[in-house]
Amino acid sequence: MSALEEIIKDPERLFIGESVPAEYLTDSYVADLPSVYGVALPVTHEEVMALVKFANEHDLIILARGAGTGVAGSQVPIHGNELIIDVHLMNKIGELDEETLTLTVEPGVLVGMVHDYVEKKGYFYPPDPASKHSSIGGNVATNAGGLRAVKYGTTRDYVREMTVVLPNGEDMTLGSLNIKSSSGYDLKDLFIGSEGTLGITTQVKLKLLPLPKVSQSILLAFEDVGKATDGALAILASGADPSGVELFEKEALYYAEQHLGYPLKTQVGQAYLLMTLDGNDEKELIARTETVREAAMSDALEIHVLSEDDAVKSWALRDNILIGLMAFTEYEMLDEVVPINKFAELIRYTKELQEKHGLNVINFGHSGDGNVHTVLMKGDLSKEDWLEKRSGLLDDLYQKVSDLGGLPSAEHGIGIVKKKYLERMSADINLDYMRKIKAVFDPDNRLNPGKLF
Amino acid sequence: MSALEEIIKDPERLFIGESVPAEYLTDSYVADLPSVYGVALPVTHEEVMALVKFANEHDLIILARGAGTGVAGSQVPIHGNELIIDVHLMNKIGELDEETLTLTVEPGVLVGMVHDYVEKKGYFYPPDPASKHSSIGGNVATNAGGLRAVKYGTTRDYVREMTVVLPNGEDMTLGSLNIKSSSGYDLKDLFIGSEGTLGITTQVKLKLLPLPKVSQSILLAFEDVGKATDGALAILASGADPSGVELFEKEALYYAEQHLGYPLKTQVGQAYLLMTLDGNDEKELIARTETVREAAMSDALEIHVLSEDDAVKSWALRDNILIGLMAFTEYEMLDEVVPINKFAELIRYTKELQEKHGLNVINFGHSGDGNVHTVLMKGDLSKEDWLEKRSGLLDDLYQKVSDLGGLPSAEHGIGIVKKKYLERMSADINLDYMRKIKAVFDPDNRLNPGKLF
Repeated sequence: MSALEEIIKDPERLFIGESVPAEYLTDSYVADLPSVYGVALPVTHEEVMALVKFANEHDLIILARGAGTGVAGSQVPIHGNELIIDVHLMNKIGELDEETLTLTVEPGVLVGMVHDYVEKKGYFYPPDPASKHSSIGGNVATNAGGLRAVKYGTTRDYVREMTVVLPNGEDMTLGSLNIKSSSGYDLKDLFIGSEGTLGITTQVKLKLLPLPKVSQSILLAFEDVGKATDGALAILASGADPSGVELFEKEALYYAEQHLGYPLKTQVGQAYLLMTLDGNDEKELIARTETVREAAMSDALEIHVLSEDDAVKSWALRDNILIGLMAFTEYEMLDEVVPINKFAELIRYTKELQEKHGLNVINFGHSGDGNVHTVLMKGDLSKEDWLEKRSGLLDDLYQKVSDLGGLPSAEHGIGIVKKKYLERMSADINLDYMRKIKAVFDPDNRLNPGKLF
Repeated sequence: MSALEEIIKDPERLFIGESVPAEYLTDSYVADLPSVYGVALPVTHEEVMALVKFANEHDLIILARGAGTGVAGSQVPIHGNELIIDVHLMNKIGELDEETLTLTVEPGVLVGMVHDYVEKKGYFYPPDPASKHSSIGGNVATNAGGLRAVKYGTTRDYVREMTVVLPNGEDMTLGSLNIKSSSGYDLKDLFIGSEGTLGITTQVKLKLLPLPKVSQSILLAFEDVGKATDGALAILASGADPSGVELFEKEALYYAEQHLGYPLKTQVGQAYLLMTLDGNDEKELIARTETVREAAMSDALEIHVLSEDDAVKSWALRDNILIGLMAFTEYEMLDEVVPINKFAELIRYTKELQEKHGLNVINFGHSGDGNVHTVLMKGDLSKEDWLEKRSGLLDDLYQKVSDLGGLPSAEHGIGIVKKKYLERMSADINLDYMRKIKAVFDPDNRLNPGKLF
């Protein structure tokens, strides 16, 4: 106790035992969590190191937490003797280095803050998770994707260098400002996406791009999801180079339309693609818009090149699907991914499962990446029915994802929520080597144990 | 012996002891290599597995070899009891999947073959090492970069999935056709760039892009290397999005001009940038060419927008710098990388070292990536003088690279040639964890031991 107060001198940044706020013991997807040893909110790298050493000396489990927006249970306590290290106060934006096009940030900085900060200065940070109030540390821990991954890649592609505190309290810098490297094993990419099981990120140097000067949104309507997927594949192969290709069913959109109080610009068909082109030249953008039109013409019912006002309204509808849904029902959102040519087959199968299990299902997602957000809706079901039907549907659905060569999570992580599905979809040998690597960095299994595998 | 002949039944694909051809016991950078146990040339994944198991049973060191174009000594024998597994006959190009935009290849396929094959069908494989006759397996082992990395990234970014045989003879598939993943540790990127120390690649699924429809090369002349680097930084920040920005000194070009028998289009200044823009729209390319002109105007002496004929001639000069040099002198080419804003400082420092050590030095490289190919020339020096001066100069040079935050290798690998410099430039803790990860996959230290670290 007194040793911990020596590390975190400000009492407002330290909670022990019963004083721990309830928010640390819950999560949007996991309930009935045990109490914890304590919560500390460091503001420096050195405090994180000292906290980890303290946890080693007192044989505590360590759990790092960022903005708390995770949906896979990666950041929730499950043992009871956790010291939660909440880094959300480590939220300083450091140097913007215009020569190396990098931005230094602490892990608690929110991704929306990064966008605002760099765009004012003419730069661009492409990773764009729908949750703008998720933290960079959490984005790194889950290799967050989002709306622009099809053209620009995921968080992994924008981490030049990161500093981590290891489970034993030592620290290490991974990666560098060098753009290319053939100088030893790529430890940086091992840590990215490891969901806080290998180390605690305390600083990240993000890669930036010049901000594209112009953009154009396009809305396409299709008879059904199959046609919409064919359209997406044709657009991707056309060279039009979209920065995002979002697909949603009319049914999914309904909730957003109710919530925002206006309809989508087109109401024909059962499935839509909403996409953006970005670039630096107005005329070139017009040419690429034409390329999209030609590529999608034979599949689409309607193609709308959107005015800026219509673009804002259409993207707001896309962004409000879940928020709209919340007013109607309890739900569970999935995050599965399949090879891009299996996208339509997976979505069609969810409709079969809807019939089979008597559970309403809607789909939206990043069709440019093969990443579906299938949403299971509780509706009027009793809690017992909901849990039972949900469990049966998930078993079938993840089996199909596996059969199609897919994975349980594209961008949210495995945590505890999808552990058994990852196990089912992975070869034993791959999981075995992951566990052995975990043991290399964390021989005492002290850092976020019981997550991922 | 007989067990080995059971695995490789074709005697033309198996050499034991003294029958091993001399080419396996040499390398452009390493001489005086020991003899080996034998060389086997498998043609299937199963043969590779069986060979690795044989080596385990007979306690042999295993060394994988591709096209043999490596320049860091990664693929040379150094122990004497190696079984060399030469995969260059595993050179079949498999399925081109136009839906997932992937191409399946065996590791012995040469990168130039991949380019030819996909470009005929309207697709694009961006990684473009100067050595078109290097193998995909070797490209993966070194995370090869090349001329288009500034826009498109390196080999790492184009491996969707790979199959490897592990040091114990088991096999494992890393990555998948899924575009995004947040489903467990990224083992694939750990193997990429590991220089054949963790596993032997037997199949790769490469990511392709649609082939850009138009391209434009631009040649810029500058007073000196400092001005050329300033110009490169300005071009990179302009949003012109070049696919490559090559820098060379007039001095380096001299040898190529002699070799090819014609001069570069401009002869003013002491340093040049040669760059390409690619895209899908002629007009847009003209606009981006103008962006380059505006960005570089204040630094450049001359800017030439090249005709197709001049472009071919200029790139041929760039590609023939080393070949031209060969006719004049023995040399050693380095592969160091520094953060992009330190590029000019490093090149200027090589000139100081030229004076200090009395050894001629020229530079060319990928200025868009901060990757310099410094070339040390023997000239008329005696072998003894050459070795002594070279060693002194390398010590100073790599110290400077380290001081600037750089790394010993951007794209060729560490092998045995740069081991001591990697050690000097890396934190002990990083090398220590690399060694521990090596031990996870290769507890007997059987696969290419003594390389990298």
